[in-house]
Amino acid sequence: MDDFGTGGGFSARVAAAVAGSGPLCAGIDPSAALLEQWGLTDDARGVRSFGMRCVEAFAGVVPVVKPQVAFFERCGSAGMAALESVLESARAAGLIVIADAKRADIDTTMEAYASAWLDPRSPFCADAVTAVPYLGLGALQPMFDLAGAHGRGVMVVARSSNPEGRALQQAVTASGSGPSVEDMVLHEIAALNHGGALPAGTVGAVVGATLQPSQFRLAELGGTILAPGVGAQGATAHEVAALFAGCPPGMVLASVSRSVLCAGPTVTALTAAATKALEEMAGALA
Amino acid sequence: MDDFGTGGGFSARVAAAVAGSGPLCAGIDPSAALLEQWGLTDDARGVRSFGMRCVEAFAGVVPVVKPQVAFFERCGSAGMAALESVLESARAAGLIVIADAKRADIDTTMEAYASAWLDPRSPFCADAVTAVPYLGLGALQPMFDLAGAHGRGVMVVARSSNPEGRALQQAVTASGSGPSVEDMVLHEIAALNHGGALPAGTVGAVVGATLQPSQFRLAELGGTILAPGVGAQGATAHEVAALFAGCPPGMVLASVSRSVLCAGPTVTALTAAATKALEEMAGALA
Repeated sequence: MDDFGTGGGFSARVAAAVAGSGPLCAGIDPSAALLEQWGLTDDARGVRSFGMRCVEAFAGVVPVVKPQVAFFERCGSAGMAALESVLESARAAGLIVIADAKRADIDTTMEAYASAWLDPRSPFCADAVTAVPYLGLGALQPMFDLAGAHGRGVMVVARSSNPEGRALQQAVTASGSGPSVEDMVLHEIAALNHGGALPAGTVGAVVGATLQPSQFRLAELGGTILAPGVGAQGATAHEVAALFAGCPPGMVLASVSRSVLCAGPTVTALTAAATKALEEMAGALA
Repeated sequence: MDDFGTGGGFSARVAAAVAGSGPLCAGIDPSAALLEQWGLTDDARGVRSFGMRCVEAFAGVVPVVKPQVAFFERCGSAGMAALESVLESARAAGLIVIADAKRADIDTTMEAYASAWLDPRSPFCADAVTAVPYLGLGALQPMFDLAGAHGRGVMVVARSSNPEGRALQQAVTASGSGPSVEDMVLHEIAALNHGGALPAGTVGAVVGATLQPSQFRLAELGGTILAPGVGAQGATAHEVAALFAGCPPGMVLASVSRSVLCAGPTVTALTAAATKALEEMAGALA
Protein backbone atom coordinates (compact mmCIF):
# COMPACT_ATOMS: atom_id res chain seq x y z
CA MET A 1 0.00 0.00 0.00
CA ASP A 2 3.01 2.29 -0.41
CA ASP A 3 1.35 3.87 -3.39
CA PHE A 4 -1.78 4.87 -1.49
CA GLY A 5 -2.63 8.46 -2.10
CA THR A 6 -0.44 8.87 -5.14
CA GLY A 7 -1.84 9.33 -8.62
CA GLY A 8 -4.83 11.40 -9.59
CA GLY A 9 -7.68 9.30 -8.26
CA PHE A 10 -10.22 10.33 -5.67
CA SER A 11 -8.37 8.74 -2.74
CA ALA A 12 -5.25 10.76 -3.57
CA ARG A 13 -7.22 13.99 -3.38
CA VAL A 14 -8.67 12.95 -0.05
CA ALA A 15 -5.26 11.91 1.31
CA ALA A 16 -3.75 15.24 0.29
CA ALA A 17 -6.55 17.17 1.96
CA VAL A 18 -6.32 15.02 5.10
CA ALA A 19 -2.56 15.65 5.24
CA GLY A 20 -3.37 19.35 5.32
CA SER A 21 -6.12 19.42 7.91
CA GLY A 22 -6.83 16.00 9.45
CA PRO A 23 -8.96 12.85 8.98
CA LEU A 24 -12.48 14.21 9.36
CA CYS A 25 -15.61 14.17 7.24
CA ALA A 26 -18.24 16.50 8.69
CA GLY A 27 -21.86 15.63 7.96
CA ILE A 28 -24.38 18.24 6.86
CA ASP A 29 -27.61 16.73 8.19
CA PRO A 30 -30.49 19.19 8.41
CA SER A 31 -32.84 16.82 10.23
CA ALA A 32 -36.13 18.09 11.60
CA ALA A 33 -34.70 17.91 15.12
CA LEU A 34 -31.58 19.94 14.30
CA LEU A 35 -33.54 22.53 12.29
CA GLU A 36 -35.69 23.11 15.34
CA GLN A 37 -32.67 23.27 17.63
CA TRP A 38 -31.05 25.83 15.35
CA GLY A 39 -34.24 27.92 15.21
CA LEU A 40 -34.68 27.34 11.48
CA THR A 41 -37.91 26.60 9.63
CA ASP A 42 -38.57 22.99 8.66
CA ASP A 43 -38.66 23.66 4.92
CA ALA A 44 -36.41 24.23 1.91
CA ARG A 45 -35.38 27.64 3.21
CA GLY A 46 -34.38 26.15 6.53
CA VAL A 47 -32.29 23.32 5.05
CA ARG A 48 -30.59 25.83 2.74
CA SER A 49 -29.64 28.09 5.65
CA PHE A 50 -28.47 25.08 7.64
CA GLY A 51 -26.26 23.85 4.81
CA MET A 52 -24.81 27.27 4.07
CA ARG A 53 -23.93 27.78 7.71
CA CYS A 54 -22.19 24.39 7.80
CA VAL A 55 -20.13 25.30 4.72
CA GLU A 56 -19.12 28.59 6.30
CA ALA A 57 -18.17 26.87 9.55
CA PHE A 58 -16.31 23.92 8.00
CA ALA A 59 -14.48 25.54 5.03
CA GLY A 60 -10.76 25.73 5.70
CA VAL A 61 -11.22 23.67 8.86
CA VAL A 62 -12.16 20.13 7.77
CA PRO A 63 -11.12 18.50 4.48
CA VAL A 64 -14.38 16.77 3.56
CA VAL A 65 -18.09 17.41 4.08
CA LYS A 66 -20.97 15.01 3.55
CA PRO A 67 -24.43 16.46 2.91
CA GLN A 68 -27.10 13.85 3.68
CA VAL A 69 -29.38 13.95 0.64
CA ALA A 70 -32.42 12.51 2.43
CA PHE A 71 -32.86 15.65 4.53
CA PHE A 72 -32.97 17.83 1.43
CA GLU A 73 -35.18 15.38 -0.48
CA ARG A 74 -37.67 15.52 2.39
CA CYS A 75 -38.37 19.14 1.37
CA GLY A 76 -39.26 18.25 -2.23
CA SER A 77 -37.73 19.79 -5.32
CA ALA A 78 -37.29 23.06 -3.44
CA GLY A 79 -35.17 21.14 -0.93
CA MET A 80 -33.16 19.66 -3.78
CA ALA A 81 -32.62 23.17 -5.16
CA ALA A 82 -31.31 24.11 -1.71
CA LEU A 83 -28.92 21.16 -1.95
CA GLU A 84 -27.66 22.50 -5.28
CA SER A 85 -26.83 25.80 -3.60
CA VAL A 86 -25.07 24.07 -0.72
CA LEU A 87 -23.06 21.85 -3.09
CA GLU A 88 -22.04 24.85 -5.18
CA SER A 89 -21.05 26.78 -2.11
CA ALA A 90 -19.02 23.87 -0.71
CA ARG A 91 -17.16 23.39 -4.01
CA ALA A 92 -16.44 27.10 -4.20
CA ALA A 93 -15.05 26.96 -0.65
CA GLY A 94 -12.59 24.23 -1.66
CA LEU A 95 -14.22 21.48 0.37
CA ILE A 96 -14.25 17.90 -0.92
CA VAL A 97 -17.91 16.90 -1.03
CA ILE A 98 -19.33 13.40 -0.59
CA ALA A 99 -23.03 13.37 -1.47
CA ASP A 100 -24.55 10.84 0.92
CA ALA A 101 -27.25 9.51 -1.38
CA LYS A 102 -26.80 5.71 -0.97
CA ARG A 103 -28.14 5.09 -4.49
CA ALA A 104 -28.58 1.63 -5.96
CA ASP A 105 -29.91 0.35 -9.28
CA ILE A 106 -28.86 -1.34 -12.53
CA ASP A 107 -28.16 -0.58 -16.19
CA THR A 108 -29.35 2.72 -17.64
CA THR A 109 -30.92 3.64 -14.30
CA MET A 110 -27.53 3.39 -12.60
CA GLU A 111 -26.08 5.48 -15.43
CA ALA A 112 -28.69 8.13 -14.63
CA TYR A 113 -27.76 8.17 -10.93
CA ALA A 114 -24.09 8.35 -11.88
CA SER A 115 -24.82 11.30 -14.11
CA ALA A 116 -26.89 13.03 -11.43
CA TRP A 117 -24.17 12.91 -8.78
CA LEU A 118 -20.85 12.78 -10.66
CA ASP A 119 -21.25 14.47 -14.04
CA PRO A 120 -19.59 17.92 -13.86
CA ARG A 121 -22.55 19.36 -15.81
CA SER A 122 -25.08 18.20 -13.20
CA PRO A 123 -26.23 20.72 -10.59
CA PHE A 124 -25.93 17.91 -7.99
CA CYS A 125 -22.31 17.16 -8.95
CA ALA A 126 -20.16 16.15 -5.97
CA ASP A 127 -16.62 14.80 -5.59
CA ALA A 128 -18.01 11.45 -4.56
CA VAL A 129 -21.34 9.78 -3.89
CA THR A 130 -22.30 6.93 -1.58
CA ALA A 131 -23.88 3.78 -3.06
CA VAL A 132 -25.35 0.49 -1.83
CA PRO A 133 -24.38 -2.91 -3.31
CA TYR A 134 -27.49 -5.07 -2.76
CA LEU A 135 -27.86 -5.51 -6.52
CA GLY A 136 -24.20 -6.55 -6.70
CA LEU A 137 -21.13 -4.37 -6.82
CA GLY A 138 -21.05 -5.01 -10.57
CA ALA A 139 -24.39 -3.21 -10.96
CA LEU A 140 -22.67 -0.02 -9.75
CA GLN A 141 -20.11 -0.14 -12.59
CA PRO A 142 -21.62 2.82 -14.56
CA MET A 143 -21.04 4.93 -11.46
CA PHE A 144 -17.44 3.73 -11.08
CA ASP A 145 -16.78 4.46 -14.76
CA LEU A 146 -18.11 8.01 -14.62
CA ALA A 147 -16.30 8.65 -11.34
CA GLY A 148 -13.03 7.39 -12.79
CA ALA A 149 -13.39 9.50 -15.90
CA HIS A 150 -13.60 12.65 -13.79
CA GLY A 151 -11.20 11.90 -10.92
CA ARG A 152 -14.19 11.46 -8.62
CA GLY A 153 -15.16 8.66 -6.28
CA VAL A 154 -17.87 6.26 -5.17
CA MET A 155 -18.09 5.25 -1.51
CA VAL A 156 -19.80 1.86 -1.27
CA VAL A 157 -21.52 0.86 1.95
CA ALA A 158 -19.76 -2.42 2.77
CA ARG A 159 -20.00 -2.90 6.55
CA SER A 160 -22.66 -0.78 8.19
CA SER A 161 -22.51 -0.36 11.93
CA ASN A 162 -26.26 -0.65 12.59
CA PRO A 163 -27.27 -3.95 14.22
CA GLU A 164 -30.02 -4.61 11.63
CA GLY A 165 -27.40 -4.93 8.91
CA ARG A 166 -25.26 -7.65 10.49
CA ALA A 167 -27.23 -10.77 9.45
CA LEU A 168 -27.23 -9.80 5.77
CA GLN A 169 -23.70 -8.43 5.56
CA GLN A 170 -22.27 -11.45 7.40
CA ALA A 171 -24.07 -14.02 5.24
CA VAL A 172 -21.66 -16.42 3.58
CA THR A 173 -21.30 -16.36 -0.20
CA ALA A 174 -20.71 -19.27 -2.60
CA SER A 175 -23.16 -21.65 -0.89
CA GLY A 176 -21.44 -21.12 2.42
CA SER A 177 -17.87 -21.69 1.22
CA GLY A 178 -16.88 -18.13 0.24
CA PRO A 179 -16.24 -14.91 2.14
CA SER A 180 -19.00 -13.01 3.89
CA VAL A 181 -21.08 -10.58 1.84
CA GLU A 182 -19.22 -7.59 3.29
CA ASP A 183 -15.81 -9.16 2.64
CA MET A 184 -16.84 -10.10 -0.90
CA VAL A 185 -17.79 -6.47 -1.51
CA LEU A 186 -14.47 -5.28 -0.02
CA HIS A 187 -12.48 -7.78 -2.13
CA GLU A 188 -14.30 -6.62 -5.27
CA ILE A 189 -13.61 -2.98 -4.43
CA ALA A 190 -9.91 -3.75 -3.98
CA ALA A 191 -9.86 -5.56 -7.32
CA LEU A 192 -11.33 -2.49 -9.02
CA ASN A 193 -8.82 -0.14 -7.39
CA HIS A 194 -5.86 -2.37 -8.29
CA GLY A 195 -7.14 -3.60 -11.65
CA GLY A 196 -5.96 -0.74 -13.80
CA ALA A 197 -9.22 -0.03 -15.65
CA LEU A 198 -10.09 2.75 -13.19
CA PRO A 199 -7.79 5.34 -11.59
CA ALA A 200 -6.50 3.83 -8.33
CA GLY A 201 -8.63 4.94 -5.42
CA THR A 202 -11.82 5.57 -7.40
CA VAL A 203 -13.85 3.21 -5.23
CA GLY A 204 -13.98 3.61 -1.48
CA ALA A 205 -15.95 1.93 1.28
CA VAL A 206 -18.08 2.81 4.27
CA VAL A 207 -16.98 0.67 7.22
CA GLY A 208 -18.40 1.18 10.69
CA ALA A 209 -15.60 1.83 13.18
CA THR A 210 -17.36 -0.03 15.98
CA LEU A 211 -17.23 -3.38 14.16
CA GLN A 212 -14.76 -6.15 14.86
CA PRO A 213 -12.17 -6.72 12.11
CA SER A 214 -13.33 -9.19 9.44
CA GLN A 215 -11.15 -11.49 7.33
CA PHE A 216 -10.51 -8.75 4.76
CA ARG A 217 -7.49 -6.59 5.56
CA LEU A 218 -8.71 -3.03 5.09
CA ALA A 219 -5.22 -1.72 4.33
CA GLU A 220 -5.48 -3.60 1.01
CA LEU A 221 -8.61 -1.75 -0.14
CA GLY A 222 -6.76 0.79 -2.25
CA GLY A 223 -9.48 3.39 -1.68
CA THR A 224 -10.73 5.81 0.94
CA ILE A 225 -12.55 4.42 3.97
CA LEU A 226 -15.32 6.44 5.52
CA ALA A 227 -15.75 5.35 9.13
CA PRO A 228 -18.73 6.33 11.25
CA GLY A 229 -18.45 5.63 14.96
CA VAL A 230 -14.95 6.84 15.81
CA GLY A 231 -14.62 8.97 18.92
CA ALA A 232 -16.64 9.79 21.99
CA GLN A 233 -19.32 7.16 22.68
CA GLY A 234 -18.04 5.19 19.68
CA ALA A 235 -15.17 2.81 19.13
CA THR A 236 -12.30 2.87 21.59
CA ALA A 237 -8.80 3.77 20.43
CA HIS A 238 -7.89 0.10 20.79
CA GLU A 239 -10.78 -1.01 18.54
CA VAL A 240 -9.97 1.61 15.92
CA ALA A 241 -6.31 0.59 15.88
CA ALA A 242 -7.24 -3.09 15.44
CA LEU A 243 -9.78 -2.44 12.69
CA PHE A 244 -7.62 -0.09 10.62
CA ALA A 245 -4.26 -1.78 11.27
CA GLY A 246 -1.80 -0.92 8.52
CA CYS A 247 -3.98 1.67 6.81
CA PRO A 248 -1.70 4.54 5.74
CA PRO A 249 -2.35 8.13 6.83
CA GLY A 250 -5.08 9.77 4.78
CA MET A 251 -6.86 6.53 3.95
CA VAL A 252 -9.40 6.58 6.77
CA LEU A 253 -11.82 9.46 7.23
CA ALA A 254 -13.80 9.54 10.45
CA SER A 255 -17.38 10.55 9.77
CA VAL A 256 -19.13 12.69 12.36
CA SER A 257 -22.45 14.48 12.13
CA ARG A 258 -24.71 15.01 15.10
CA SER A 259 -21.93 15.37 17.67
CA VAL A 260 -20.64 18.42 15.77
CA LEU A 261 -23.94 19.76 14.45
CA CYS A 262 -25.60 19.87 17.84
CA ALA A 263 -23.10 22.60 18.75
CA GLY A 264 -24.94 24.93 16.32
CA PRO A 265 -26.47 27.23 15.34
CA THR A 266 -23.62 29.74 15.41
CA VAL A 267 -20.77 29.43 12.92
CA THR A 268 -18.26 30.06 15.70
CA ALA A 269 -19.58 27.22 17.83
CA LEU A 270 -19.75 24.86 14.84
CA THR A 271 -16.17 25.65 13.86
CA ALA A 272 -15.04 25.08 17.44
CA ALA A 273 -16.87 21.72 17.59
CA ALA A 274 -15.41 20.64 14.24
CA THR A 275 -11.92 21.62 15.36
CA LYS A 276 -12.33 19.63 18.55
CA ALA A 277 -13.62 16.60 16.61
CA LEU A 278 -10.74 16.91 14.18
CA GLU A 279 -8.20 16.77 17.00
CA GLU A 280 -9.98 13.84 18.60
CA MET A 281 -10.09 11.91 15.30
CA ALA A 282 -6.47 12.69 14.47
CA GLY A 283 -5.59 11.17 17.83
CA ALA A 284 -7.80 8.11 17.36
CA LEU A 285 -6.57 7.39 13.84
CA ALA A 286 -2.90 8.24 14.46
CA MET B 1 -53.56 -16.63 1.78
CA ASP B 2 -57.36 -16.49 1.46
CA ASP B 3 -57.32 -13.07 3.01
CA PHE B 4 -54.99 -11.55 0.42
CA GLY B 5 -56.32 -8.32 -0.90
CA THR B 6 -58.81 -7.76 1.87
CA GLY B 7 -58.41 -5.05 4.47
CA GLY B 8 -57.23 -1.53 3.86
CA GLY B 9 -53.54 -2.05 3.26
CA PHE B 10 -51.59 -1.19 0.11
CA SER B 11 -51.83 -4.70 -1.38
CA ALA B 12 -55.62 -4.59 -1.13
CA ARG B 13 -55.72 -1.39 -3.15
CA VAL B 14 -53.44 -2.91 -5.76
CA ALA B 15 -55.49 -6.11 -5.91
CA ALA B 16 -58.71 -4.15 -6.40
CA ALA B 17 -57.15 -2.09 -9.19
CA VAL B 18 -55.72 -5.21 -10.84
CA ALA B 19 -59.14 -6.86 -10.68
CA GLY B 20 -60.47 -3.91 -12.64
CA SER B 21 -57.83 -3.62 -15.33
CA GLY B 22 -55.17 -6.34 -15.13
CA PRO B 23 -51.77 -7.15 -13.54
CA LEU B 24 -49.53 -4.48 -15.06
CA CYS B 25 -47.24 -1.80 -13.69
CA ALA B 26 -46.09 0.54 -16.46
CA GLY B 27 -42.75 2.22 -15.97
CA ILE B 28 -42.24 5.94 -16.62
CA ASP B 29 -38.55 5.98 -17.57
CA PRO B 30 -37.43 9.13 -19.38
CA SER B 31 -33.93 7.87 -20.19
CA ALA B 32 -31.68 9.88 -22.48
CA ALA B 33 -32.24 7.30 -25.23
CA LEU B 34 -36.04 7.42 -24.99
CA LEU B 35 -36.13 11.23 -24.79
CA GLU B 36 -34.20 11.35 -28.04
CA GLN B 37 -36.42 8.73 -29.63
CA TRP B 38 -39.51 10.72 -28.63
CA GLY B 39 -38.01 13.95 -29.99
CA LEU B 40 -37.89 15.56 -26.56
CA THR B 41 -35.10 17.67 -25.11
CA ASP B 42 -32.75 15.99 -22.64
CA ASP B 43 -33.61 18.30 -19.75
CA ALA B 44 -36.24 18.92 -17.09
CA ARG B 45 -38.75 20.13 -19.67
CA GLY B 46 -38.24 16.95 -21.68
CA VAL B 47 -38.70 14.57 -18.73
CA ARG B 48 -41.82 16.49 -17.68
CA SER B 49 -43.38 16.17 -21.14
CA PHE B 50 -42.41 12.50 -21.23
CA GLY B 51 -44.01 11.81 -17.85
CA MET B 52 -47.17 13.76 -18.63
CA ARG B 53 -47.62 11.90 -21.89
CA CYS B 54 -47.24 8.57 -20.06
CA VAL B 55 -49.90 9.55 -17.53
CA GLU B 56 -52.27 10.55 -20.32
CA ALA B 57 -51.62 7.28 -22.16
CA PHE B 58 -51.82 4.97 -19.13
CA ALA B 59 -54.66 6.52 -17.06
CA GLY B 60 -57.75 4.33 -17.15
CA VAL B 61 -55.77 1.64 -18.97
CA VAL B 62 -53.23 0.22 -16.50
CA PRO B 63 -53.74 0.10 -12.69
CA VAL B 64 -50.24 1.08 -11.57
CA VAL B 65 -47.42 3.30 -12.89
CA LYS B 66 -43.82 3.44 -11.71
CA PRO B 67 -41.84 6.60 -12.38
CA GLN B 68 -38.10 5.85 -12.23
CA VAL B 69 -36.73 8.60 -9.99
CA ALA B 70 -33.14 8.39 -11.32
CA PHE B 71 -34.18 9.80 -14.70
CA PHE B 72 -35.72 12.86 -13.08
CA GLU B 73 -32.86 13.27 -10.59
CA ARG B 74 -30.43 13.33 -13.52
CA CYS B 75 -31.96 16.70 -14.47
CA GLY B 76 -31.31 18.28 -11.08
CA SER B 77 -33.87 20.01 -8.89
CA ALA B 78 -35.71 21.13 -12.02
CA GLY B 79 -36.04 17.46 -12.96
CA MET B 80 -37.34 16.72 -9.47
CA ALA B 81 -39.90 19.53 -9.88
CA ALA B 82 -40.96 17.81 -13.12
CA LEU B 83 -41.39 14.60 -11.13
CA GLU B 84 -43.65 16.45 -8.68
CA SER B 85 -45.88 17.49 -11.61
CA VAL B 86 -45.96 13.95 -12.99
CA LEU B 87 -46.80 12.48 -9.57
CA GLU B 88 -49.58 15.01 -9.05
CA SER B 89 -50.98 14.34 -12.48
CA ALA B 90 -50.86 10.55 -11.99
CA ARG B 91 -52.63 10.82 -8.63
CA ALA B 92 -55.29 13.08 -10.13
CA ALA B 93 -55.82 10.53 -12.92
CA GLY B 94 -56.54 7.80 -10.36
CA LEU B 95 -53.39 5.80 -11.05
CA ILE B 96 -51.64 3.95 -8.22
CA VAL B 97 -48.08 5.28 -8.20
CA ILE B 98 -44.94 3.41 -7.11
CA ALA B 99 -41.99 5.80 -6.92
CA ASP B 100 -39.01 3.71 -8.00
CA ALA B 101 -36.39 5.35 -5.79
CA LYS B 102 -34.67 2.29 -4.25
CA ARG B 103 -33.77 4.25 -1.13
CA ALA B 104 -31.76 2.80 1.74
CA ASP B 105 -30.46 4.22 5.01
CA ILE B 106 -30.92 4.04 8.78
CA ASP B 107 -32.45 5.92 11.71
CA THR B 108 -33.48 9.54 11.19
CA THR B 109 -32.16 9.45 7.63
CA MET B 110 -34.57 6.64 6.80
CA GLU B 111 -37.33 8.66 8.46
CA ALA B 112 -36.49 11.51 6.11
CA TYR B 113 -36.71 9.28 3.03
CA ALA B 114 -40.00 7.87 4.33
CA SER B 115 -41.32 11.39 4.73
CA ALA B 116 -40.12 12.41 1.26
CA TRP B 117 -41.93 9.59 -0.56
CA LEU B 118 -44.86 8.62 1.65
CA ASP B 119 -45.97 11.62 3.70
CA PRO B 120 -49.17 13.02 2.15
CA ARG B 121 -47.80 16.55 2.70
CA SER B 122 -44.68 15.88 0.61
CA PRO B 123 -44.68 16.98 -3.03
CA PHE B 124 -43.03 13.63 -3.89
CA CYS B 125 -45.77 11.62 -2.16
CA ALA B 126 -46.55 8.33 -3.91
CA ASP B 127 -48.71 5.31 -3.06
CA ALA B 128 -45.58 3.24 -2.56
CA VAL B 129 -41.82 3.57 -2.84
CA THR B 130 -39.13 0.99 -3.62
CA ALA B 131 -36.35 0.37 -1.08
CA VAL B 132 -33.17 -1.70 -0.80
CA PRO B 133 -32.40 -3.88 2.27
CA TYR B 134 -28.55 -3.97 2.34
CA LEU B 135 -28.58 -2.25 5.75
CA GLY B 136 -31.06 -4.86 6.96
CA LEU B 137 -34.82 -4.95 6.49
CA GLY B 138 -35.11 -3.65 10.05
CA ALA B 139 -33.38 -0.42 9.01
CA LEU B 140 -36.33 0.30 6.71
CA GLN B 141 -38.82 0.20 9.61
CA PRO B 142 -39.46 3.99 9.66
CA MET B 143 -40.61 3.67 6.06
CA PHE B 144 -42.88 0.72 6.86
CA ASP B 145 -44.38 2.61 9.79
CA LEU B 146 -45.17 5.71 7.77
CA ALA B 147 -46.52 3.62 4.89
CA GLY B 148 -48.76 1.68 7.25
CA ALA B 149 -50.08 4.83 8.89
CA HIS B 150 -51.30 6.12 5.53
CA GLY B 151 -52.44 2.92 3.76
CA ARG B 152 -49.38 3.14 1.53
CA GLY B 153 -46.70 0.60 0.70
CA VAL B 154 -42.99 -0.14 0.48
CA MET B 155 -41.72 -2.46 -2.24
CA VAL B 156 -38.44 -4.01 -1.07
CA VAL B 157 -35.99 -5.33 -3.65
CA ALA B 158 -35.54 -8.94 -2.51
CA ARG B 159 -34.49 -10.95 -5.59
CA SER B 160 -33.19 -8.83 -8.44
CA SER B 161 -32.98 -10.43 -11.86
CA ASN B 162 -29.60 -8.92 -12.85
CA PRO B 163 -26.74 -11.45 -12.83
CA GLU B 164 -24.50 -9.18 -10.69
CA GLY B 165 -26.93 -9.49 -7.79
CA ARG B 166 -27.00 -13.28 -7.52
CA ALA B 167 -23.83 -13.90 -5.43
CA LEU B 168 -24.92 -11.46 -2.72
CA GLN B 169 -28.61 -12.32 -2.66
CA GLN B 170 -27.90 -16.05 -2.59
CA ALA B 171 -25.34 -15.83 0.23
CA VAL B 172 -26.31 -18.01 3.18
CA THR B 173 -27.20 -16.35 6.47
CA ALA B 174 -26.49 -17.53 10.04
CA SER B 175 -22.91 -18.68 9.31
CA GLY B 176 -24.13 -20.84 6.46
CA SER B 177 -26.96 -22.57 8.33
CA GLY B 178 -29.84 -20.18 7.62
CA PRO B 179 -31.83 -19.19 4.55
CA SER B 180 -30.29 -17.22 1.69
CA VAL B 181 -30.19 -13.44 1.98
CA GLU B 182 -33.12 -13.06 -0.41
CA ASP B 183 -35.20 -15.66 1.42
CA MET B 184 -34.38 -14.08 4.77
CA VAL B 185 -35.64 -10.76 3.42
CA LEU B 186 -38.81 -12.41 2.07
CA HIS B 187 -39.43 -14.22 5.39
CA GLU B 188 -39.01 -10.95 7.26
CA ILE B 189 -41.43 -9.19 4.90
CA ALA B 190 -44.01 -11.94 5.44
CA ALA B 191 -43.58 -11.62 9.21
CA LEU B 192 -44.27 -7.88 8.98
CA ASN B 193 -47.38 -8.39 6.84
CA HIS B 194 -48.76 -11.10 9.13
CA GLY B 195 -47.54 -9.65 12.43
CA GLY B 196 -50.40 -7.27 13.12
CA ALA B 197 -48.37 -4.15 13.88
CA LEU B 198 -48.78 -2.92 10.28
CA PRO B 199 -51.84 -3.14 8.01
CA ALA B 200 -51.59 -6.44 6.09
CA GLY B 201 -49.98 -5.91 2.72
CA THR B 202 -47.98 -2.81 3.64
CA VAL B 203 -44.68 -4.39 2.60
CA GLY B 204 -44.24 -5.85 -0.86
CA ALA B 205 -41.28 -7.27 -2.73
CA VAL B 206 -39.53 -6.93 -6.06
CA VAL B 207 -38.83 -10.42 -7.42
CA GLY B 208 -37.41 -10.97 -10.89
CA ALA B 209 -39.70 -13.22 -12.93
CA THR B 210 -36.82 -14.90 -14.73
CA LEU B 211 -35.40 -16.42 -11.52
CA GLN B 212 -35.82 -20.01 -10.43
CA PRO B 213 -38.08 -20.47 -7.39
CA SER B 214 -36.20 -20.29 -4.07
CA GLN B 215 -37.09 -22.03 -0.82
CA PHE B 216 -39.48 -19.25 0.20
CA ARG B 217 -43.03 -19.77 -1.07
CA LEU B 218 -44.00 -16.41 -2.55
CA ALA B 219 -47.72 -17.03 -2.00
CA GLU B 220 -46.98 -16.61 1.75
CA LEU B 221 -45.58 -13.08 1.39
CA GLY B 222 -48.81 -11.31 2.28
CA GLY B 223 -47.87 -8.32 0.12
CA THR B 224 -47.74 -7.23 -3.50
CA ILE B 225 -45.01 -8.68 -5.72
CA LEU B 226 -43.58 -6.51 -8.47
CA ALA B 227 -42.08 -8.76 -11.13
CA PRO B 228 -39.83 -7.48 -13.89
CA GLY B 229 -39.11 -9.89 -16.73
CA VAL B 230 -42.55 -11.34 -17.49
CA GLY B 231 -43.49 -11.56 -21.16
CA ALA B 232 -41.76 -11.38 -24.52
CA GLN B 233 -38.03 -12.10 -24.25
CA GLY B 234 -38.50 -12.69 -20.54
CA ALA B 235 -39.66 -15.63 -18.47
CA THR B 236 -41.73 -18.29 -20.18
CA ALA B 237 -45.29 -19.01 -19.06
CA HIS B 238 -43.99 -22.21 -17.46
CA GLU B 239 -41.33 -20.34 -15.46
CA VAL B 240 -43.83 -17.72 -14.31
CA ALA B 241 -46.31 -20.38 -13.25
CA ALA B 242 -43.62 -22.21 -11.25
CA LEU B 243 -42.29 -19.07 -9.57
CA PHE B 244 -45.66 -17.62 -8.57
CA ALA B 245 -47.41 -20.91 -7.80
CA GLY B 246 -50.35 -20.34 -5.48
CA CYS B 247 -50.20 -16.54 -5.58
CA PRO B 248 -53.80 -15.28 -5.66
CA PRO B 249 -55.04 -12.95 -8.42
CA GLY B 250 -53.96 -9.36 -7.87
CA MET B 251 -50.87 -10.26 -5.84
CA VAL B 252 -48.35 -10.19 -8.68
CA LEU B 253 -47.84 -7.11 -10.85
CA ALA B 254 -45.76 -7.53 -13.98
CA SER B 255 -43.43 -4.57 -14.43
CA VAL B 256 -42.75 -3.38 -17.97
CA SER B 257 -41.00 -0.25 -19.12
CA ARG B 258 -38.95 -0.09 -22.29
CA SER B 259 -41.09 -2.57 -24.25
CA VAL B 260 -44.08 -0.23 -23.88
CA LEU B 261 -42.27 3.12 -23.86
CA CYS B 262 -40.43 2.46 -27.13
CA ALA B 263 -43.85 2.57 -28.82
CA GLY B 264 -43.95 6.34 -28.12
CA PRO B 265 -44.06 9.22 -28.62
CA THR B 266 -47.78 9.42 -29.42
CA VAL B 267 -50.33 8.85 -26.69
CA THR B 268 -52.35 6.61 -29.00
CA ALA B 269 -49.40 4.33 -29.69
CA LEU B 270 -48.45 4.21 -26.00
CA THR B 271 -51.98 3.30 -24.99
CA ALA B 272 -52.06 0.58 -27.63
CA ALA B 273 -48.71 -0.84 -26.45
CA ALA B 274 -49.85 -0.76 -22.80
CA THR B 275 -53.10 -2.50 -23.70
CA LYS B 276 -51.21 -5.20 -25.58
CA ALA B 277 -48.79 -5.67 -22.65
CA LEU B 278 -51.72 -5.85 -20.26
CA GLU B 279 -53.31 -8.67 -22.23
CA GLU B 280 -50.02 -10.51 -22.49
CA MET B 281 -49.38 -10.20 -18.75
CA ALA B 282 -52.93 -11.21 -17.83
CA GLY B 283 -52.31 -14.35 -19.89
CA ALA B 284 -48.90 -15.04 -18.37
CA LEU B 285 -50.06 -14.53 -14.77
CA ALA B 286 -53.48 -16.22 -15.15
